[in-house]
Amino acid sequence: MVGGGPGAFIGDVHRKAIALDGSAVLAAGCFSRSHEGTLATGRALGVDPARLYRSFDEMAAAEATRDDGIDFVVIVTPNGSHHAAARAFLSHGIHVACDKPVTLEVEEAEELAALARKNDLLFCVTYTYTGYPAVKQAREMVGSGELGEIRFVNAEYAQEWLATPLERDGKHKQAAWRADPKETGRSLCVGDIGTHVENLVRTVTGLRISSLSARLDTLVPGRALDDNATILLDYEGGARGVYWASQVAIGRDNALRLRIFGSSGAIEWAQEDPDHLRVSRLGRPTELVSRGRDTFQPAAQRHSRIPAGHPEGYFEAFANIYRTFTAALAKKKRGAVLDAGDLDFPSVEEGISGVRFVHRCVESSSRGSARLKF
Amino acid sequence: MVGGGPGAFIGDVHRKAIALDGSAVLAAGCFSRSHEGTLATGRALGVDPARLYRSFDEMAAAEATRDDGIDFVVIVTPNGSHHAAARAFLSHGIHVACDKPVTLEVEEAEELAALARKNDLLFCVTYTYTGYPAVKQAREMVGSGELGEIRFVNAEYAQEWLATPLERDGKHKQAAWRADPKETGRSLCVGDIGTHVENLVRTVTGLRISSLSARLDTLVPGRALDDNATILLDYEGGARGVYWASQVAIGRDNALRLRIFGSSGAIEWAQEDPDHLRVSRLGRPTELVSRGRDTFQPAAQRHSRIPAGHPEGYFEAFANIYRTFTAALAKKKRGAVLDAGDLDFPSVEEGISGVRFVHRCVESSSRGSARLKF
Amino acid sequence: MVGGGPGAFIGDVHRKAIALDGSAVLAAGCFSRSHEGTLATGRALGVDPARLYRSFDEMAAAEATRDDGIDFVVIVTPNGSHHAAARAFLSHGIHVACDKPVTLEVEEAEELAALARKNDLLFCVTYTYTGYPAVKQAREMVGSGELGEIRFVNAEYAQEWLATPLERDGKHKQAAWRADPKETGRSLCVGDIGTHVENLVRTVTGLRISSLSARLDTLVPGRALDDNATILLDYEGGARGVYWASQVAIGRDNALRLRIFGSSGAIEWAQEDPDHLRVSRLGRPTELVSRGRDTFQPAAQRHSRIPAGHPEGYFEAFANIYRTFTAALAKKKRGAVLDAGDLDFPSVEEGISGVRFVHRCVESSSRGSARLKF
Amino acid sequence: MVGGGPGAFIGDVHRKAIALDGSAVLAAGCFSRSHEGTLATGRALGVDPARLYRSFDEMAAAEATRDDGIDFVVIVTPNGSHHAAARAFLSHGIHVACDKPVTLEVEEAEELAALARKNDLLFCVTYTYTGYPAVKQAREMVGSGELGEIRFVNAEYAQEWLATPLERDGKHKQAAWRADPKETGRSLCVGDIGTHVENLVRTVTGLRISSLSARLDTLVPGRALDDNATILLDYEGGARGVYWASQVAIGRDNALRLRIFGSSGAIEWAQEDPDHLRVSRLGRPTELVSRGRDTFQPAAQRHSRIPAGHPEGYFEAFANIYRTFTAALAKKKRGAVLDAGDLDFPSVEEGISGVRFVHRCVESSSRGSARLKF
Repeated sequence: MVGGGPGAFIGDVHRKAIALDGSAVLAAGCFSRSHEGTLATGRALGVDPARLYRSFDEMAAAEATRDDGIDFVVIVTPNGSHHAAARAFLSHGIHVACDKPVTLEVEEAEELAALARKNDLLFCVTYTYTGYPAVKQAREMVGSGELGEIRFVNAEYAQEWLATPLERDGKHKQAAWRADPKETGRSLCVGDIGTHVENLVRTVTGLRISSLSARLDTLVPGRALDDNATILLDYEGGARGVYWASQVAIGRDNALRLRIFGSSGAIEWAQEDPDHLRVSRLGRPTELVSRGRDTFQPAAQRHSRIPAGHPEGYFEAFANIYRTFTAALAKKKRGAVLDAGDLDFPSVEEGISGVRFVHRCVESSSRGSARLKF
Repeated sequence: MVGGGPGAFIGDVHRKAIALDGSAVLAAGCFSRSHEGTLATGRALGVDPARLYRSFDEMAAAEATRDDGIDFVVIVTPNGSHHAAARAFLSHGIHVACDKPVTLEVEEAEELAALARKNDLLFCVTYTYTGYPAVKQAREMVGSGELGEIRFVNAEYAQEWLATPLERDGKHKQAAWRADPKETGRSLCVGDIGTHVENLVRTVTGLRISSLSARLDTLVPGRALDDNATILLDYEGGARGVYWASQVAIGRDNALRLRIFGSSGAIEWAQEDPDHLRVSRLGRPTELVSRGRDTFQPAAQRHSRIPAGHPEGYFEAFANIYRTFTAALAKKKRGAVLDAGDLDFPSVEEGISGVRFVHRCVESSSRGSARLKF
Repeated sequence: MVGGGPGAFIGDVHRKAIALDGSAVLAAGCFSRSHEGTLATGRALGVDPARLYRSFDEMAAAEATRDDGIDFVVIVTPNGSHHAAARAFLSHGIHVACDKPVTLEVEEAEELAALARKNDLLFCVTYTYTGYPAVKQAREMVGSGELGEIRFVNAEYAQEWLATPLERDGKHKQAAWRADPKETGRSLCVGDIGTHVENLVRTVTGLRISSLSARLDTLVPGRALDDNATILLDYEGGARGVYWASQVAIGRDNALRLRIFGSSGAIEWAQEDPDHLRVSRLGRPTELVSRGRDTFQPAAQRHSRIPAGHPEGYFEAFANIYRTFTAALAKKKRGAVLDAGDLDFPSVEEGISGVRFVHRCVESSSRGSARLKF
Repeated sequence: MVGGGPGAFIGDVHRKAIALDGSAVLAAGCFSRSHEGTLATGRALGVDPARLYRSFDEMAAAEATRDDGIDFVVIVTPNGSHHAAARAFLSHGIHVACDKPVTLEVEEAEELAALARKNDLLFCVTYTYTGYPAVKQAREMVGSGELGEIRFVNAEYAQEWLATPLERDGKHKQAAWRADPKETGRSLCVGDIGTHVENLVRTVTGLRISSLSARLDTLVPGRALDDNATILLDYEGGARGVYWASQVAIGRDNALRLRIFGSSGAIEWAQEDPDHLRVSRLGRPTELVSRGRDTFQPAAQRHSRIPAGHPEGYFEAFANIYRTFTAALAKKKRGAVLDAGDLDFPSVEEGISGVRFVHRCVESSSRGSARLKF
């Protein structure tokens, strides 16, 4: 693992999600820019001190040469370092799981994709929310035509946490780096959460954006980047959509929500109630479908561990991504050919789309919400 | 009453809403373009046959000269006739309550407003949804600064009923006229329901639109007008908003919903659960406020008839508009001066704003969602 | 109307509910024990002063002899006067609509029923909650076997309003008489709201109680009667049930809720969201059925006035009872034979069952929650 | 681990919950009555074959003598074997975590409690649902008097899964043993899920049952034991309650729900939405409190791993029990004295209360729902 040292939030989530299924064992790390930080974290996690590294370059080089070298690396640093770290490991022939956004620049993401292809390596971008079984179920339903032709998508992601200038109070490390253009890139809100919306819609509907028009707002005075954004989407084939992302939405914890309307049905999912789908069919009462019931299709149901009514959550969604990714690695290692089911985790292609999305939104907004080709 | 004859829906709603409180008595009418229709409806409603008219012009002229002539007229014809009918009654010194949209053209609405002013007449446009006590409460909370400075508004109105080309099956009179540009004007979805969103936000927040950018979609093939619309709003003072209106949203009955985010609080209201507000304050748990409890402010509470937990609905919202309008008429008749509380019903100014909104949306959409001054 | 004078709540509800549909016109009254009260209320309501009476006896006698005498009387006095008032009107050949509980004693209710039968009069007991279209729909679904054989019923009615000793603060007339055994009878909570639960279950399921075991609690110290009750029911045919009624349930406005479980399906309804039913079928997702959609059966749909998504509420439920009752009166007056659909309002038989229910609960509780034959 | 072999559900849940935090490592096992089953499961889980045992007696004896012997055993066999297995390990000085109900007989549970005390061993009974942070929060709120004096408790646990005679179709191993009196003891529904209700109320409110009256129903014809139960509770100090448990409640997945009413507030929690509490205070709007927000008290918040809006679920609740239990073991091993916070997991005392509850319910029901001292 690269990143995930003292004070980090997401690194521990990755580790617990992997541990839940025993998908992998943490064998080496460069957890912090400070070596002391890495040593402290490594000790706490029981990692062999010989495999605690001063830099990710050193780690990539060293692990690549060990007989018992790591099978894949997990990259959970702030956004700005993803590209260099991922390149280092890919270059040494090591598979990669990387947090989103995969890079700051589209070209960087494309370079990583090319490198992975060239070296025949798997590259997973951990868009957590697509790991939920109900999201898989929604995708299966759309894919099998249960909603008819998709006409309109309304998706949103609302949070309260940046409704005040938290990044300036000196105590919130996460708020500070996320609001700092040098660490986070060109966008705060679209980059941090808007991109999850883009990925969720892309995954569930299969729709490809043809053009978009975005308005990024800075609603907390003095903030350097956007904290709220509204985006109009035109998709290939004629469907339309609107996305709203906000980090100043008082009263909302982590309210990612997806509504898809087709010509014969509609579906709604809310991340804060992840085990249920609301499914509507033309002229029929809306149905509440529970994760774990037989009404889930196999490609969704296999991502569920316990019966309906026993809530699964964020860790389990994360764990689903790792369980699929590590199973694919194992199968690949055995020399077997991977099929689409094996690759049912977010790939570097998703990552490229995500970075492009952030860029197009920023550009459109800076040009008066002009409609731009995607 | 003008309009509201056989097969009409909204005329009967107006009559029942007036009857609930005994706000007025139906004394005369021209319910239908066919005199036979008017006679039949009049008979069924027990109206004096001598006061059943062949045209609204005849009715306005005749009633204006009777000692017991009507105090006000209710206009519930299809949109295209509102202007002429309202003008006739205003010209004869009769107060008017008219369905929305008040006219097809902005200039027509402005003419009616001028005429009402000149003849010292009250003019109510029956935007039903602002009659709900919880909407009044939301307005009071915003007005008294409980949410801080308003930053963002997300409002929507979603229905399923036109998800198929209902207007072409020959059986749905309402769908037919609403989807016909000659009867309904330039827009189906924005004119029919989007305008309710505009009015609701304007009423509750007091925000005035400075510019907007709209995309109107025709998602059911072959339809002449829009059936779905997404609109980005910039308000005077810097707040931002997004409205979504759809008549092809499968699974939604009449899902008008309002979310307002301020610098210190937020509020949410859904028309299908009209007796409750969700109120959030920075860093605090969200509260569910019930209509009828003491937590409602007096200006909202007086629009409530029964205790909390005894549901009030659409008729009661409608009745609130009529009760306020007729009380103002009575007070005016007594020669008293009307204050803001007396005039707490949607006025012709609201109507003008609504027609302008429809026009700007249509124009923006036809120009590639260009941002237009409002 | 008898009762419903100054300060009363329910009298005005009856009047508005009748006015909504113009089911009847208020022609005479004895609104208060004080004649001044009656005169004041009568004036305010525009009743002919000659038909404002000093007592219900006087009113019954006088109206019975007028050519334009009232067709039926509405009795909305405190519980203790229902019997005498109803008897007076029935004796004079006048139909009766009476608030619940119909009487304090079972024998009194049975006497009224016998008198109505003898004089061929209709007798409606206004159990409001069975007037909701969704309740009719639930009844139709149970009746047509859609849920299979009914196995278990869980019904409850929870309110907050008596969580403090409101009846002792001298300001709440309603709390005072309801908590006073002399006015209210043997039970506060079961008599006031528990009886609505009994009626709702009886109406929807058709189940007849064979025995019950009740525990009545006085949870606010110093109160003379019960303010909370839990009742175990055995029904004829083997189904079982539990009812809970509480007036000390902080946070609840008027939370009447019904859940019915059958061998192949289940249904849930909550009075505070009256337009929706939750319908579950074995192994299937739960459905949310909206009042006003085609999925409602005709016997339910005809009690709905406006489309789905336009909320109907308490007044409309009440109005449904009056609309049905007055239509039956009119049909009877025409000499036609009334069928079951005509009589789809709560009858005096429901009233008898309600009074018996209160008595059995009080008796069981006083005998250590002994199981008693019903 | 004892139990949890092929086809078992709960054993895997225990293992994953332990793995999530790395609370412990699985070192030895007797997973099945068949040694082949144990070997297969052990192989799949990577357990040293030398530590895969033919019986729990053999395992207890062997592990007790190893230097690297297990610190504690997890017992997840069908109910009937809990007592013998637990006794074996306690006798050999090994701490125990055991599934609920801890034993079939009260005396057996008391014997285990005495044995644990005598040998200074920790004994955890894995009542999962008390591991949720929101349950801890509810307990803290009650304990600190935020709801005033507790007056009434309404708790329920409803499931659909046994609405048909699943145990007789030959395919559902779990249904078969749970419905078989020889394996499950005297009660199906009360023993399987009713006991969770008892434990949850006991934990959150601290109330102790003084007497109860129960009616156990067999609503699916031909079933040997109860599948539905309603229980009236009197608590020490005067509070009252009602519990309902059902395994034939069509439409319900795993609907454990708790409502507590005090003299100044009330609280509601539903296991299927475990991250939220509904908190009501006298005369105030109900609040929706999110797990992970600052409004949670420290004793609850420390059982939360991720921010509000990132759902935690059943595994995390389970993991909280193990994390607390193993931390207490580690602290004890270091020779430190354990305080109440250290022991914040369900103990064998909870287990005794649970078994007694099942017995009293069965006895009361068999005696016509007689009220029995607890």
